[in-house]
Amino acid sequence: MSPNFKPYYAVIFTSTQKENITGYAEMANKMEELAKKQPGYLGIESSRSDLGITVSYWESLEAIKNWKQQADHLEAQKQGKTKWYRWYKIRICKVEHEYEFSSLDN
Amino acid sequence: MSPNFKPYYAVIFTSTQKENITGYAEMANKMEELAKKQPGYLGIESSRSDLGITVSYWESLEAIKNWKQQADHLEAQKQGKTKWYRWYKIRICKVEHEYEFSSLDN
Repeated sequence: MSPNFKPYYAVIFTSTQKENITGYAEMANKMEELAKKQPGYLGIESSRSDLGITVSYWESLEAIKNWKQQADHLEAQKQGKTKWYRWYKIRICKVEHEYEFSSLDN
Repeated sequence: MSPNFKPYYAVIFTSTQKENITGYAEMANKMEELAKKQPGYLGIESSRSDLGITVSYWESLEAIKNWKQQADHLEAQKQGKTKWYRWYKIRICKVEHEYEFSSLDN
C-alpha cells in the first residue's frame, strides 16, 4: 500500500437476471452515464457471464447514499426489481488496501 | 442492515488476460477448491466478459493474509503474472453493509 493511499468505498453489486431482459441494456448504459456525473464518483467495473458483477467506486459513504437516492436511479431500481433481476446482493465496502500488476510484455 | 450484521472482508480481483491462457482454467479451479479449505473462507463470486471480476469473502484480514501466502497459491500467483494476466488490480475491502433482493416470480 502506498503511504499516500486514501481509503475509498466500493459498492459490489452481484446479480442474476431473468430470461427476458428487454430494456435492460439501455437502462444500464443510462445509469452508468448518470453515475459518472455524480459527486464523489470514482469509477466502475462490470462483468457478466452467468453471474453479473458490477463494482462502482466512490469517495465516501455520503456519495453512495446520494447516488442511491438520485431520482432517475430510484426509478431504475424499481424497474430492476420488477423486470430484470431474479436476485441481487449489494455490499457496501471500505477499500483499505490495493495493489496493481501490469505485465511487461503487454 | 441487520442489527446482527458482523463486518467481514472482500478481496476484489479485477483482471484482463492475455490471448493464450493455456492452463489457466485448470489452475483457477484448483485455486478455488483450495481457497474453500482455508480458515476464514466465506465464499466466492466470479464473472468474466472482457474484464474478469472475482470477489472472495473472508472473516478477517488475517485469513486473507494466510491465503495470500499459501504455498500452492504463491506458485499460482507467480504463473498468473508470467503466463495469463495482462493486468490485474486487487482491492482489500471491509464489508460494512449489505442487502439482498429476491424476486417473487423466481
